[in-house]
Amino acid sequence: MQSVETRLRVRYAETDQMGVVYYANYLVWMEVGRVEFCRAAGGRYRDIEEDGYLLAVLEAHCKYVSPARYDDEIVVVATMGEANARLPRFDYEIKDAVTEQLRATGSTSHIWCGPDFRPRKLAAKYWPVFGITK
Amino acid sequence: MQSVETRLRVRYAETDQMGVVYYANYLVWMEVGRVEFCRAAGGRYRDIEEDGYLLAVLEAHCKYVSPARYDDEIVVVATMGEANARLPRFDYEIKDAVTEQLRATGSTSHIWCGPDFRPRKLAAKYWPVFGITK
Amino acid sequence: MQSVETRLRVRYAETDQMGVVYYANYLVWMEVGRVEFCRAAGGRYRDIEEDGYLLAVLEAHCKYVSPARYDDEIVVVATMGEANARLPRFDYEIKDAVTEQLRATGSTSHIWCGPDFRPRKLAAKYWPVFGITK
Amino acid sequence: MQSVETRLRVRYAETDQMGVVYYANYLVWMEVGRVEFCRAAGGRYRDIEEDGYLLAVLEAHCKYVSPARYDDEIVVVATMGEANARLPRFDYEIKDAVTEQLRATGSTSHIWCGPDFRPRKLAAKYWPVFGITK
Repeated sequence: MQSVETRLRVRYAETDQMGVVYYANYLVWMEVGRVEFCRAAGGRYRDIEEDGYLLAVLEAHCKYVSPARYDDEIVVVATMGEANARLPRFDYEIKDAVTEQLRATGSTSHIWCGPDFRPRKLAAKYWPVFGITK
Repeated sequence: MQSVETRLRVRYAETDQMGVVYYANYLVWMEVGRVEFCRAAGGRYRDIEEDGYLLAVLEAHCKYVSPARYDDEIVVVATMGEANARLPRFDYEIKDAVTEQLRATGSTSHIWCGPDFRPRKLAAKYWPVFGITK
Repeated sequence: MQSVETRLRVRYAETDQMGVVYYANYLVWMEVGRVEFCRAAGGRYRDIEEDGYLLAVLEAHCKYVSPARYDDEIVVVATMGEANARLPRFDYEIKDAVTEQLRATGSTSHIWCGPDFRPRKLAAKYWPVFGITK
Repeated sequence: MQSVETRLRVRYAETDQMGVVYYANYLVWMEVGRVEFCRAAGGRYRDIEEDGYLLAVLEAHCKYVSPARYDDEIVVVATMGEANARLPRFDYEIKDAVTEQLRATGSTSHIWCGPDFRPRKLAAKYWPVFGITK
Protein backbone atom coordinates (compact mmCIF):
# COMPACT_ATOMS: atom_id res chain seq x y z
CA MET A 1 0.00 0.00 0.00
CA GLN A 2 1.35 3.38 -0.94
CA SER A 3 1.99 6.34 1.32
CA VAL A 4 0.94 9.88 0.54
CA GLU A 5 2.99 12.87 1.66
CA THR A 6 1.42 16.23 2.42
CA ARG A 7 3.37 19.36 3.24
CA LEU A 8 2.25 22.11 5.52
CA ARG A 9 3.78 25.08 7.29
CA VAL A 10 3.33 25.47 11.06
CA ARG A 11 1.02 28.40 11.78
CA TYR A 12 1.47 30.84 14.66
CA ALA A 13 -2.03 29.85 15.75
CA GLU A 14 -0.81 26.28 16.21
CA THR A 15 1.88 27.13 18.76
CA ASP A 16 1.36 27.50 22.49
CA GLN A 17 3.24 29.34 25.21
CA MET A 18 5.78 26.51 25.50
CA GLY A 19 6.99 27.77 22.12
CA VAL A 20 6.08 24.54 20.34
CA VAL A 21 3.05 23.17 18.52
CA TYR A 22 0.11 22.46 20.84
CA TYR A 23 -0.43 18.72 21.05
CA ALA A 24 -4.00 18.57 19.76
CA ASN A 25 -2.96 20.16 16.46
CA TYR A 26 -1.14 17.00 15.41
CA LEU A 27 -4.59 15.41 15.08
CA VAL A 28 -5.61 18.24 12.75
CA TRP A 29 -2.53 17.51 10.63
CA MET A 30 -3.47 13.82 10.55
CA GLU A 31 -6.87 14.86 9.14
CA VAL A 32 -5.11 16.93 6.48
CA GLY A 33 -2.93 13.93 5.69
CA ARG A 34 -5.77 11.47 5.25
CA VAL A 35 -7.79 13.84 3.06
CA GLU A 36 -4.79 14.25 0.78
CA PHE A 37 -4.34 10.48 0.83
CA CYS A 38 -7.83 10.17 -0.69
CA ARG A 39 -7.17 12.91 -3.24
CA ALA A 40 -3.91 11.30 -4.36
CA ALA A 41 -5.80 8.03 -4.82
CA GLY A 42 -8.33 9.73 -7.08
CA GLY A 43 -11.12 10.42 -4.59
CA ARG A 44 -12.31 13.51 -2.81
CA TYR A 45 -13.46 12.88 0.76
CA ARG A 46 -15.78 15.85 0.30
CA ASP A 47 -17.66 14.06 -2.51
CA ILE A 48 -17.78 10.79 -0.61
CA GLU A 49 -19.29 12.57 2.39
CA GLU A 50 -21.85 14.34 0.19
CA ASP A 51 -22.72 10.91 -1.20
CA GLY A 52 -23.68 9.80 2.32
CA TYR A 53 -20.54 8.13 3.70
CA LEU A 54 -18.98 9.73 6.78
CA LEU A 55 -15.60 8.68 8.10
CA ALA A 56 -16.26 8.98 11.84
CA VAL A 57 -13.32 8.60 14.22
CA LEU A 58 -13.39 5.75 16.74
CA GLU A 59 -9.93 6.13 18.16
CA ALA A 60 -6.92 8.38 17.82
CA HIS A 61 -3.41 7.91 19.06
CA CYS A 62 -0.35 10.11 18.85
CA LYS A 63 3.18 9.60 20.09
CA TYR A 64 5.15 12.84 20.31
CA VAL A 65 8.81 12.32 19.43
CA SER A 66 10.26 15.83 19.12
CA PRO A 67 8.53 19.22 19.08
CA ALA A 68 7.56 21.00 15.87
CA ARG A 69 7.97 24.76 15.99
CA TYR A 70 6.51 27.83 14.40
CA ASP A 71 7.18 28.22 10.66
CA ASP A 72 8.69 24.74 10.34
CA GLU A 73 7.80 22.95 7.16
CA ILE A 74 6.19 19.65 8.03
CA VAL A 75 5.52 16.47 6.06
CA VAL A 76 2.61 14.26 7.01
CA VAL A 77 3.03 10.74 5.64
CA ALA A 78 -0.33 8.98 5.61
CA THR A 79 -0.68 5.26 4.99
CA MET A 80 -3.73 3.03 4.87
CA GLY A 81 -3.00 0.80 7.86
CA GLU A 82 -6.14 -1.27 7.53
CA ALA A 83 -7.97 -1.13 4.19
CA ASN A 84 -11.51 -1.99 5.16
CA ALA A 85 -14.98 -1.03 3.93
CA ARG A 86 -16.30 -0.87 7.50
CA LEU A 87 -13.49 -0.18 9.96
CA PRO A 88 -10.48 1.40 8.24
CA ARG A 89 -7.33 2.62 9.98
CA PHE A 90 -4.84 5.25 8.88
CA ASP A 91 -1.26 5.42 10.13
CA TYR A 92 0.83 8.58 10.12
CA GLU A 93 4.37 9.79 10.38
CA ILE A 94 4.87 13.48 10.96
CA LYS A 95 8.34 14.72 10.06
CA ASP A 96 10.28 17.91 9.57
CA ALA A 97 10.39 18.49 5.82
CA VAL A 98 13.94 19.81 5.84
CA THR A 99 15.78 17.67 8.39
CA GLU A 100 13.46 14.64 8.06
CA GLN A 101 13.53 14.40 11.88
CA LEU A 102 10.54 12.53 13.17
CA ARG A 103 8.14 14.72 15.12
CA ALA A 104 5.32 12.26 15.82
CA THR A 105 3.73 9.01 14.82
CA GLY A 106 0.10 8.11 15.19
CA SER A 107 -2.99 6.39 13.93
CA THR A 108 -6.71 6.96 13.62
CA SER A 109 -9.30 4.19 13.56
CA HIS A 110 -12.57 4.93 11.85
CA ILE A 111 -16.00 3.61 11.07
CA TRP A 112 -17.86 4.37 7.87
CA CYS A 113 -21.28 5.79 8.78
CA GLY A 114 -24.36 7.17 7.14
CA PRO A 115 -25.51 10.74 7.85
CA ASP A 116 -27.48 9.26 10.78
CA PHE A 117 -24.16 8.08 12.32
CA ARG A 118 -25.20 4.44 11.94
CA PRO A 119 -22.56 2.09 10.50
CA ARG A 120 -22.70 1.99 6.71
CA LYS A 121 -20.39 -0.14 4.64
CA LEU A 122 -18.51 1.91 2.08
CA ALA A 123 -19.87 1.46 -1.47
CA ALA A 124 -17.65 -0.64 -3.72
CA LYS A 125 -17.15 2.21 -6.19
CA TYR A 126 -15.01 3.99 -3.57
CA TRP A 127 -12.92 0.95 -2.67
CA PRO A 128 -10.05 1.76 -5.03
CA VAL A 129 -9.53 5.11 -3.27
CA PHE A 130 -8.80 3.30 -0.02
CA GLY A 131 -7.09 0.22 -1.44
CA ILE A 132 -9.94 -2.08 -0.41
CA THR A 133 -9.91 -5.28 -2.39
CA LYS A 134 -12.75 -7.36 -0.96
CA MET B 1 -30.73 46.82 27.36
CA GLN B 2 -29.03 44.55 29.83
CA SER B 3 -25.56 43.08 29.63
CA VAL B 4 -24.73 39.45 30.30
CA GLU B 5 -21.45 38.39 31.86
CA THR B 6 -19.84 35.04 31.10
CA ARG B 7 -16.76 33.74 32.84
CA LEU B 8 -14.16 31.51 31.29
CA ARG B 9 -10.65 30.38 32.07
CA VAL B 10 -7.88 30.79 29.48
CA ARG B 11 -6.85 27.40 28.12
CA TYR B 12 -3.30 26.42 27.27
CA ALA B 13 -4.59 25.69 23.76
CA GLU B 14 -5.55 29.34 23.41
CA THR B 15 -2.06 30.72 23.99
CA ASP B 16 0.62 31.13 21.36
CA GLN B 17 4.39 31.33 21.49
CA MET B 18 4.26 35.03 22.41
CA GLY B 19 3.01 33.74 25.76
CA VAL B 20 -0.38 35.42 25.38
CA VAL B 21 -3.77 34.48 23.96
CA TYR B 22 -3.76 34.14 20.17
CA TYR B 23 -5.78 36.97 18.66
CA ALA B 24 -8.41 34.89 16.82
CA ASN B 25 -9.50 33.28 20.08
CA TYR B 26 -11.11 36.51 21.25
CA LEU B 27 -13.72 35.92 18.53
CA VAL B 28 -14.39 32.48 20.00
CA TRP B 29 -14.94 34.12 23.38
CA MET B 30 -17.35 36.60 21.78
CA GLU B 31 -19.34 33.61 20.46
CA VAL B 32 -19.41 32.15 23.98
CA GLY B 33 -20.59 35.51 25.30
CA ARG B 34 -23.45 35.92 22.84
CA VAL B 35 -24.71 32.37 23.37
CA GLU B 36 -24.83 33.00 27.13
CA PHE B 37 -26.54 36.31 26.42
CA CYS B 38 -29.37 34.34 24.75
CA ARG B 39 -29.51 31.79 27.56
CA ALA B 40 -29.71 34.50 30.24
CA ALA B 41 -32.58 36.04 28.30
CA GLY B 42 -34.45 32.74 28.31
CA GLY B 43 -33.52 31.38 24.89
CA ARG B 44 -31.15 28.73 23.71
CA TYR B 45 -29.39 29.58 20.45
CA ARG B 46 -29.22 25.85 19.82
CA ASP B 47 -33.02 25.57 19.76
CA ILE B 48 -33.40 28.67 17.62
CA GLU B 49 -30.97 27.23 15.09
CA GLU B 50 -32.77 23.89 15.08
CA ASP B 51 -35.96 25.85 14.41
CA GLY B 52 -34.40 27.17 11.21
CA TYR B 53 -32.88 30.52 12.17
CA LEU B 54 -29.11 30.85 11.79
CA LEU B 55 -27.18 33.82 13.14
CA ALA B 56 -24.60 34.21 10.37
CA VAL B 57 -21.76 36.67 10.92
CA LEU B 58 -21.44 39.61 8.52
CA GLU B 59 -18.67 41.49 10.25
CA ALA B 60 -16.41 41.13 13.26
CA HIS B 61 -14.20 43.66 14.90
CA CYS B 62 -11.84 43.41 17.84
CA LYS B 63 -9.64 46.00 19.51
CA TYR B 64 -6.91 44.45 21.66
CA VAL B 65 -6.19 46.54 24.73
CA SER B 66 -3.95 44.35 26.90
CA PRO B 67 -2.99 40.70 26.56
CA ALA B 68 -4.83 37.91 28.36
CA ARG B 69 -2.58 35.12 29.57
CA TYR B 70 -2.81 31.42 30.31
CA ASP B 71 -5.01 30.47 33.24
CA ASP B 72 -6.41 34.00 33.64
CA GLU B 73 -10.07 34.15 34.53
CA ILE B 74 -11.85 36.23 31.94
CA VAL B 75 -15.25 37.94 31.87
CA VAL B 76 -16.98 38.47 28.56
CA VAL B 77 -19.64 41.18 28.82
CA ALA B 78 -22.06 40.86 25.91
CA THR B 79 -24.61 43.55 25.09
CA MET B 80 -27.22 43.74 22.35
CA GLY B 81 -25.87 46.70 20.42
CA GLU B 82 -28.60 46.67 17.80
CA ALA B 83 -31.76 44.73 18.60
CA ASN B 84 -33.09 43.84 15.18
CA ALA B 85 -35.00 40.92 13.68
CA ARG B 86 -32.91 41.03 10.50
CA LEU B 87 -29.52 42.60 11.17
CA PRO B 88 -28.61 42.44 14.88
CA ARG B 89 -25.32 43.53 16.40
CA PHE B 90 -23.64 42.40 19.60
CA ASP B 91 -21.05 44.45 21.47
CA TYR B 92 -18.48 42.98 23.81
CA GLU B 93 -16.09 43.90 26.55
CA ILE B 94 -13.51 41.30 27.53
CA LYS B 95 -11.98 41.88 30.95
CA ASP B 96 -9.83 40.17 33.50
CA ALA B 97 -12.20 38.76 36.10
CA VAL B 98 -9.90 39.55 39.02
CA THR B 99 -8.35 42.90 38.20
CA GLU B 100 -11.20 44.08 35.91
CA GLN B 101 -8.52 45.31 33.50
CA LEU B 102 -9.89 45.63 30.01
CA ARG B 103 -8.39 43.11 27.60
CA ALA B 104 -10.40 43.82 24.45
CA THR B 105 -13.54 45.38 23.07
CA GLY B 106 -15.36 44.31 19.97
CA SER B 107 -18.55 43.78 18.05
CA THR B 108 -20.11 41.29 15.68
CA SER B 109 -22.75 42.18 13.11
CA HIS B 110 -25.07 39.42 11.99
CA ILE B 111 -27.85 38.50 9.64
CA TRP B 112 -30.61 36.07 10.50
CA CYS B 113 -30.73 33.37 7.81
CA GLY B 114 -32.56 30.22 6.99
CA PRO B 115 -30.70 26.91 6.64
CA ASP B 116 -30.21 27.85 2.95
CA PHE B 117 -28.22 30.95 4.09
CA ARG B 118 -30.85 33.24 2.62
CA PRO B 119 -31.97 36.15 4.82
CA ARG B 120 -34.85 35.16 7.09
CA LYS B 121 -36.44 37.57 9.53
CA LEU B 122 -36.40 36.21 13.05
CA ALA B 123 -39.81 34.92 14.17
CA ALA B 124 -41.57 37.20 16.69
CA LYS B 125 -41.63 34.48 19.34
CA TYR B 126 -37.85 34.85 19.72
CA TRP B 127 -37.86 38.66 19.88
CA PRO B 128 -37.88 38.86 23.68
CA VAL B 129 -34.62 36.88 23.82
CA PHE B 130 -32.88 39.58 21.82
CA GLY B 131 -34.75 42.60 23.15
CA ILE B 132 -36.47 43.26 19.83
CA THR B 133 -39.59 45.35 20.25
CA LYS B 134 -40.85 45.93 16.74
CA MET C 1 -6.26 8.50 44.11
CA GLN C 2 -9.08 10.96 43.72
CA SER C 3 -10.75 12.10 40.52
CA VAL C 4 -11.47 15.70 39.68
CA GLU C 5 -14.50 16.73 37.64
CA THR C 6 -14.52 19.80 35.42
CA ARG C 7 -17.55 21.10 33.60
CA LEU C 8 -17.54 22.88 30.30
CA ARG C 9 -20.04 23.83 27.64
CA VAL C 10 -19.46 22.81 24.00
CA ARG C 11 -18.62 25.87 21.92
CA TYR C 12 -19.81 26.44 18.37
CA ALA C 13 -16.14 26.76 17.43
CA GLU C 14 -15.60 23.18 18.58
CA THR C 15 -18.11 21.62 16.19
CA ASP C 16 -17.45 20.62 12.61
CA GLN C 17 -19.66 20.15 9.58
CA MET C 18 -20.65 16.66 10.71
CA GLY C 19 -22.63 18.50 13.39
CA VAL C 20 -20.57 17.05 16.24
CA VAL C 21 -17.44 18.04 18.14
CA TYR C 22 -14.28 17.83 16.04
CA TYR C 23 -12.13 14.99 17.31
CA ALA C 24 -8.99 16.97 18.18
CA ASN C 25 -10.96 19.12 20.64
CA TYR C 26 -11.27 16.24 23.06
CA LEU C 27 -7.55 16.63 23.67
CA VAL C 28 -8.13 20.29 24.52
CA TRP C 29 -10.75 19.19 27.06
CA MET C 30 -8.28 16.71 28.54
CA GLU C 31 -5.87 19.61 29.05
CA VAL C 32 -8.62 21.59 30.80
CA GLY C 33 -9.31 18.54 32.96
CA ARG C 34 -5.73 18.02 34.07
CA VAL C 35 -5.20 21.68 34.87
CA GLU C 36 -8.28 21.63 37.10
CA PHE C 37 -7.00 18.39 38.64
CA CYS C 38 -3.91 20.31 39.78
CA ARG C 39 -5.95 23.24 41.04
CA ALA C 40 -8.26 20.97 43.03
CA ALA C 41 -5.19 19.39 44.59
CA GLY C 42 -3.91 22.78 45.68
CA GLY C 43 -1.47 23.57 42.87
CA ARG C 44 -1.61 25.81 39.86
CA TYR C 45 0.04 24.38 36.79
CA ARG C 46 0.77 27.95 35.76
CA ASP C 47 2.94 28.51 38.84
CA ILE C 48 4.69 25.17 38.44
CA GLU C 49 5.54 26.04 34.85
CA GLU C 50 6.82 29.48 35.86
CA ASP C 51 8.98 27.70 38.43
CA GLY C 52 10.67 25.80 35.60
CA TYR C 53 8.77 22.51 35.34
CA LEU C 54 6.96 21.84 32.06
CA LEU C 55 4.56 18.98 31.63
CA ALA C 56 5.38 17.98 28.05
CA VAL C 57 3.17 15.40 26.34
CA LEU C 58 4.75 12.13 25.21
CA GLU C 59 1.64 10.32 24.11
CA ALA C 60 -2.09 10.93 23.81
CA HIS C 61 -4.87 8.49 23.24
CA CYS C 62 -8.60 8.99 22.82
CA LYS C 63 -11.41 6.50 22.27
CA TYR C 64 -14.57 8.14 20.95
CA VAL C 65 -17.68 6.46 22.33
CA SER C 66 -20.56 8.75 21.33
CA PRO C 67 -20.53 12.23 19.79
CA ALA C 68 -20.77 15.39 21.89
CA ARG C 69 -22.79 18.16 20.28
CA TYR C 70 -23.00 21.92 20.33
CA ASP C 71 -24.13 23.47 23.63
CA ASP C 72 -23.96 20.15 25.50
CA GLU C 73 -22.70 20.40 29.04
CA ILE C 74 -19.71 18.13 29.42
CA VAL C 75 -17.92 16.70 32.44
CA VAL C 76 -14.25 15.82 32.18
CA VAL C 77 -13.21 13.38 34.90
CA ALA C 78 -9.43 13.48 35.30
CA THR C 79 -7.54 10.90 37.35
CA MET C 80 -3.84 10.53 38.06
CA GLY C 81 -3.21 7.21 36.35
CA GLU C 82 0.47 7.08 37.18
CA ALA C 83 1.70 9.37 39.94
CA ASN C 84 5.33 9.85 39.06
CA ALA C 85 7.88 12.65 39.44
CA ARG C 86 9.34 11.91 36.01
CA LEU C 87 6.79 10.21 33.78
CA PRO C 88 3.23 10.84 34.99
CA ARG C 89 0.05 9.70 33.24
CA PHE C 90 -3.44 11.16 33.42
CA ASP C 91 -6.58 9.21 32.57
CA TYR C 92 -9.84 10.80 31.49
CA GLU C 93 -13.50 10.11 31.12
CA ILE C 94 -15.53 12.59 29.14
CA LYS C 95 -19.25 12.42 29.79
CA ASP C 96 -22.45 14.30 29.14
CA ALA C 97 -23.18 16.25 32.32
CA VAL C 98 -26.92 15.73 32.11
CA THR C 99 -27.37 12.17 30.86
CA GLU C 100 -24.00 10.90 32.15
CA GLN C 101 -23.58 9.12 28.81
CA LEU C 102 -19.93 8.42 28.11
CA ARG C 103 -18.57 10.43 25.19
CA ALA C 104 -14.91 9.43 25.27
CA THR C 105 -12.15 7.94 27.35
CA GLY C 106 -8.48 8.68 27.02
CA SER C 107 -5.09 9.18 28.55
CA THR C 108 -2.06 11.42 28.21
CA SER C 109 1.47 10.37 29.14
CA HIS C 110 3.90 13.11 30.06
CA ILE C 111 7.45 13.89 30.96
CA TRP C 112 8.46 16.63 33.37
CA CYS C 113 10.96 18.90 31.62
CA GLY C 114 12.91 22.05 32.24
CA PRO C 115 12.43 25.11 30.02
CA ASP C 116 15.13 23.61 27.76
CA PHE C 117 12.86 20.55 27.17
CA ARG C 118 15.36 18.28 28.91
CA PRO C 119 13.92 15.81 31.43
CA ARG C 120 13.70 17.35 34.89
CA LYS C 121 12.38 15.46 37.89
CA LEU C 122 9.55 17.32 39.55
CA ALA C 123 10.61 19.02 42.81
CA ALA C 124 9.31 17.28 45.94
CA LYS C 125 7.36 20.37 47.04
CA TYR C 126 4.94 19.74 44.17
CA TRP C 127 4.51 16.01 44.81
CA PRO C 128 1.35 16.35 46.91
CA VAL C 129 -0.41 18.07 44.00
CA PHE C 130 0.06 14.98 41.86
CA GLY C 131 -0.23 12.35 44.58
CA ILE C 132 3.43 11.36 44.30
CA THR C 133 4.64 9.58 47.42
CA LYS C 134 8.21 8.61 46.66
CA MET D 1 3.01 48.32 -2.92
CA GLN D 2 2.84 44.75 -4.02
CA SER D 3 0.36 42.09 -2.92
CA VAL D 4 1.30 38.57 -1.96
CA GLU D 5 -1.01 35.62 -2.62
CA THR D 6 -1.03 32.54 -0.42
CA ARG D 7 -3.01 29.43 -1.15
CA LEU D 8 -4.51 27.11 1.42
CA ARG D 9 -7.05 24.33 1.54
CA VAL D 10 -9.97 24.52 3.99
CA ARG D 11 -9.52 21.91 6.73
CA TYR D 12 -12.34 19.89 8.24
CA ALA D 13 -11.22 21.30 11.60
CA GLU D 14 -12.01 24.79 10.33
CA THR D 15 -15.68 24.11 9.59
CA ASP D 16 -18.53 24.32 12.09
CA GLN D 17 -21.95 22.77 12.26
CA MET D 18 -23.37 25.40 9.89
CA GLY D 19 -21.34 23.55 7.25
CA VAL D 20 -19.13 26.56 6.59
CA VAL D 21 -15.82 27.89 7.91
CA TYR D 22 -16.06 29.16 11.50
CA TYR D 23 -15.65 32.93 11.51
CA ALA D 24 -12.60 33.16 13.78
CA ASN D 25 -10.56 31.04 11.36
CA TYR D 26 -10.44 33.86 8.82
CA LEU D 27 -8.14 35.64 11.28
CA VAL D 28 -5.87 32.60 11.27
CA TRP D 29 -5.76 32.77 7.48
CA MET D 30 -4.87 36.48 7.67
CA GLU D 31 -1.93 35.50 9.88
CA VAL D 32 -0.84 32.94 7.28
CA GLY D 33 -1.15 35.62 4.60
CA ARG D 34 0.97 38.21 6.39
CA VAL D 35 3.72 35.71 7.21
CA GLU D 36 3.93 34.74 3.55
CA PHE D 37 3.93 38.44 2.67
CA CYS D 38 7.14 38.79 4.69
CA ARG D 39 8.67 35.68 3.17
CA ALA D 40 7.92 36.83 -0.38
CA ALA D 41 9.60 40.13 0.46
CA GLY D 42 12.74 38.33 1.59
CA GLY D 43 12.18 38.23 5.35
CA ARG D 44 11.10 35.54 7.74
CA TYR D 45 8.83 36.75 10.53
CA ARG D 46 10.28 33.96 12.65
CA ASP D 47 13.78 35.45 12.43
CA ILE D 48 12.53 38.96 13.08
CA GLU D 49 10.75 37.75 16.20
CA GLU D 50 13.84 35.88 17.40
CA ASP D 51 15.74 39.14 16.87
CA GLY D 52 13.44 40.81 19.40
CA TYR D 53 10.70 42.43 17.30
CA LEU D 54 7.16 41.16 17.90
CA LEU D 55 4.27 42.13 15.66
CA ALA D 56 1.50 42.43 18.27
CA VAL D 57 -2.06 42.92 17.06
CA LEU D 58 -3.88 46.10 18.07
CA GLU D 59 -7.01 45.67 16.03
CA ALA D 60 -8.57 43.14 13.67
CA HIS D 61 -11.50 43.53 11.36
CA CYS D 62 -13.20 41.08 9.02
CA LYS D 63 -16.14 41.50 6.68
CA TYR D 64 -17.66 38.18 5.64
CA VAL D 65 -18.92 38.28 2.06
CA SER D 66 -19.73 34.66 1.20
CA PRO D 67 -19.01 31.45 3.10
CA ALA D 68 -15.95 29.30 2.43
CA ARG D 69 -16.58 25.58 2.69
CA TYR D 70 -14.67 22.42 3.50
CA ASP D 71 -11.98 21.45 0.99
CA ASP D 72 -12.28 24.73 -0.93
CA GLU D 73 -9.00 26.10 -2.18
CA ILE D 74 -8.58 29.61 -0.85
CA VAL D 75 -6.33 32.50 -1.82
CA VAL D 76 -5.34 35.05 0.79
CA VAL D 77 -4.16 38.28 -0.82
CA ALA D 78 -2.15 40.28 1.71
CA THR D 79 -1.15 43.89 1.12
CA MET D 80 0.82 46.33 3.26
CA GLY D 81 -1.89 48.88 3.94
CA GLU D 82 0.29 51.12 6.06
CA ALA D 83 4.05 50.63 5.81
CA ASN D 84 5.28 51.93 9.14
CA ALA D 85 8.13 51.05 11.49
CA ARG D 86 5.91 51.52 14.54
CA LEU D 87 2.26 50.97 13.64
CA PRO D 88 1.89 48.93 10.44
CA ARG D 89 -1.40 47.75 8.94
CA PHE D 90 -2.06 44.79 6.66
CA ASP D 91 -5.10 44.52 4.40
CA TYR D 92 -6.49 41.25 3.13
CA GLU D 93 -8.75 39.81 0.50
CA ILE D 94 -9.80 36.22 0.91
CA LYS D 95 -11.07 34.60 -2.25
CA ASP D 96 -11.99 31.23 -3.67
CA ALA D 97 -8.98 30.09 -5.69
CA VAL D 98 -11.08 28.51 -8.43
CA THR D 99 -14.05 30.85 -8.90
CA GLU D 100 -12.25 33.97 -7.58
CA GLN D 101 -15.43 34.76 -5.63
CA LEU D 102 -14.69 37.05 -2.73
CA ARG D 103 -15.15 35.35 0.64
CA ALA D 104 -13.99 38.08 3.00
CA THR D 105 -12.03 41.29 3.30
CA GLY D 106 -10.25 42.50 6.40
CA SER D 107 -7.37 44.25 8.02
CA THR D 108 -5.10 43.93 11.03
CA SER D 109 -3.40 46.86 12.73
CA HIS D 110 -0.23 46.14 14.64
CA ILE D 111 2.43 47.60 16.86
CA TRP D 112 6.05 46.53 16.79
CA CYS D 113 7.07 45.52 20.32
CA GLY D 114 10.03 44.15 22.17
CA PRO D 115 9.81 40.83 24.03
CA ASP D 116 8.57 42.86 27.03
CA PHE D 117 5.56 43.99 24.94
CA ARG D 118 6.73 47.59 25.08
CA PRO D 119 6.65 49.51 21.78
CA ARG D 120 9.88 49.07 19.84
CA LYS D 121 10.48 50.71 16.49
CA LEU D 122 11.40 48.17 13.84
CA ALA D 123 15.13 48.20 13.00
CA ALA D 124 15.93 49.76 9.63
CA LYS D 125 17.48 46.53 8.31
CA TYR D 126 13.97 45.02 8.19
CA TRP D 127 12.31 47.98 6.52
CA PRO D 128 12.62 46.62 2.96
CA VAL D 129 10.61 43.54 3.98
CA PHE D 130 7.66 45.73 4.86
CA GLY D 131 8.13 48.42 2.24
CA ILE D 132 9.04 51.07 4.81
CA THR D 133 10.92 53.95 3.26
CA LYS D 134 11.44 56.40 6.10
